[in-house]
Amino acid sequence: MVTTRNREIVLIRRPEGMPREGDFMLRETDMPMCGDGMVLIKTLYLSVDPYMRGRMSGVKSYIAPFALDEVITGGVVGEVVETRSKDLNTGDIVSGTLGWRDYNTADSRELRRIDPGLAPVSTALGILGMPGLTAYFGMMDIGRPEAGETVVVSGAAGAVGTAAGQIAKLRGCRAVGIAGSDAKTEYLVRDLGFDAGINYKSAPDFKDALKRACPRGVDVYFDNVGGWISDTVMPLLNYKARVVLCGQISQYNLEKPEPGPRVQPYLLVKSALMKGFIVTDYAARYEEAVRELGRWVAQKKLKYTEHIVAGLENAPKAFIGLFSGENTGKQIVKAG
Amino acid sequence: MVTTRNREIVLIRRPEGMPREGDFMLRETDMPMCGDGMVLIKTLYLSVDPYMRGRMSGVKSYIAPFALDEVITGGVVGEVVETRSKDLNTGDIVSGTLGWRDYNTADSRELRRIDPGLAPVSTALGILGMPGLTAYFGMMDIGRPEAGETVVVSGAAGAVGTAAGQIAKLRGCRAVGIAGSDAKTEYLVRDLGFDAGINYKSAPDFKDALKRACPRGVDVYFDNVGGWISDTVMPLLNYKARVVLCGQISQYNLEKPEPGPRVQPYLLVKSALMKGFIVTDYAARYEEAVRELGRWVAQKKLKYTEHIVAGLENAPKAFIGLFSGENTGKQIVKAG
Repeated sequence: MVTTRNREIVLIRRPEGMPREGDFMLRETDMPMCGDGMVLIKTLYLSVDPYMRGRMSGVKSYIAPFALDEVITGGVVGEVVETRSKDLNTGDIVSGTLGWRDYNTADSRELRRIDPGLAPVSTALGILGMPGLTAYFGMMDIGRPEAGETVVVSGAAGAVGTAAGQIAKLRGCRAVGIAGSDAKTEYLVRDLGFDAGINYKSAPDFKDALKRACPRGVDVYFDNVGGWISDTVMPLLNYKARVVLCGQISQYNLEKPEPGPRVQPYLLVKSALMKGFIVTDYAARYEEAVRELGRWVAQKKLKYTEHIVAGLENAPKAFIGLFSGENTGKQIVKAG
Repeated sequence: MVTTRNREIVLIRRPEGMPREGDFMLRETDMPMCGDGMVLIKTLYLSVDPYMRGRMSGVKSYIAPFALDEVITGGVVGEVVETRSKDLNTGDIVSGTLGWRDYNTADSRELRRIDPGLAPVSTALGILGMPGLTAYFGMMDIGRPEAGETVVVSGAAGAVGTAAGQIAKLRGCRAVGIAGSDAKTEYLVRDLGFDAGINYKSAPDFKDALKRACPRGVDVYFDNVGGWISDTVMPLLNYKARVVLCGQISQYNLEKPEPGPRVQPYLLVKSALMKGFIVTDYAARYEEAVRELGRWVAQKKLKYTEHIVAGLENAPKAFIGLFSGENTGKQIVKAG
């Protein structure tokens, strides 16, 4: 046992619009007791993800909302520092859905052991974790890109978008990434092999830029953002195009839904498909996907970047940064 | 040869908003010559369908626009009255895409022979033709209703909607039809076996009526209309729901697209699918479908109604009537 005090971050107010640091509070608590079959885990990395915004609202969705004055929970990678389970030893590295705390206890059956020899353990929150799996299943099961097709990815410089675009390239497609800065679009094209990148904030005529980047139209649109960016993509869809609804980050902080052009006429005349999903729809196939993603990473065919913010106390700030496009690649908080 | 004069209906002006009779003209023409391999066909029935509105605009879509001052073409059932083809005899009944004329000539290879012993020949334009096939493929390939699920059909009293709802019943589902009059909703429930019908024009609180008709939410939404009716359905979608985009008749006469609530957030949180289609996507499977539909009709498991308007000269009026909900079942014009 390293310390007798623990720290945790709780939600003290449901955000209105863009979340603010004052919606969260860091508080000290007692060290949790490690019961039978449980382990005590020291947090190494914790994940901040756009989907968590939904849980901060009081509205029931596919996942229960966070309770007020309770700890925020999400993806965590940590080290076992005390064990009362025969399945895990001290020193083991594990990942699971745990609290934003210095230390958590958990039933060993709710944890996944990570092999630190395969890749840096933080990748269990990124390319080999939820975001990588999300890109994989969204692209392989819904987008189903065929060689020679054009794939557009919005939010392309984020954790999911970087993976989705590279998977499109691995499938022999033209990959076009939409992101919010020149540094990001340059990263996509130069470092990740995207065929084109469009900075939606600076393009003088976004629609025109998109058309020029997609001279043969759009076969797959992997959508992380929604809103006007997606509206602009719809008229470019090809016959039997697929729109993968992965996220709608532009809409998460709106106090009330904004209207937009209806998508149905575009989908109708092009016999096109639009489908939402969450990664847990594919829980039964995680192993297959992690294996495949791991192979691509090992072969340097799938690159990733992690944007690491130091300190548990900075987790709220790192989370809020997702909505201003602070991160390139996976936004991660390094605890301690 | 019955006559030496022919009549045809041409489009003389592209409709703005709701089509008017003055957009069309009936004109007399010479009798067409029946060339080698061709037949001369006397029109018995012709089909007016909502999708034709799109062809009257000048905009390129999945099908070329009608040319101005040219005859309108669409589904026609007729009798061969002269033949220069070894494949067809005089007296044969055929269907094909032909002009709104008293007499057409056509290459015999572009025609389908109809067996008048199986069902009234007008069904080749309805339940055993394009609308029946549309309901069949939309429901079986995209909607894929499972026993016990709730299926909502908009435009439920139309040619496609009546078939779609009955197919849902054949699959063991709860079928809820939305239509524009009490006579229509009564017809759906009493004659066709729908479980509930909602008159969207008179329901004091449409949203509430829909909720009460769908106490277990909506698993399949077969959409013929779009607009605010569809907006109301979206929040009721269940996990992994399917939205079949078959038509958007409420939008066809708009001078410019109307905005609406975005559908993506609903599809996203429910892992739901929305897909457009046109019946020709399934051309390779028409035979299978006509066989299945014919069996259901013969077994009285699939009923149909035809709303027949007399006289070629009344085809424009019959077409326009589609948009005011004049018809229950398939709107057909009886020539002669």
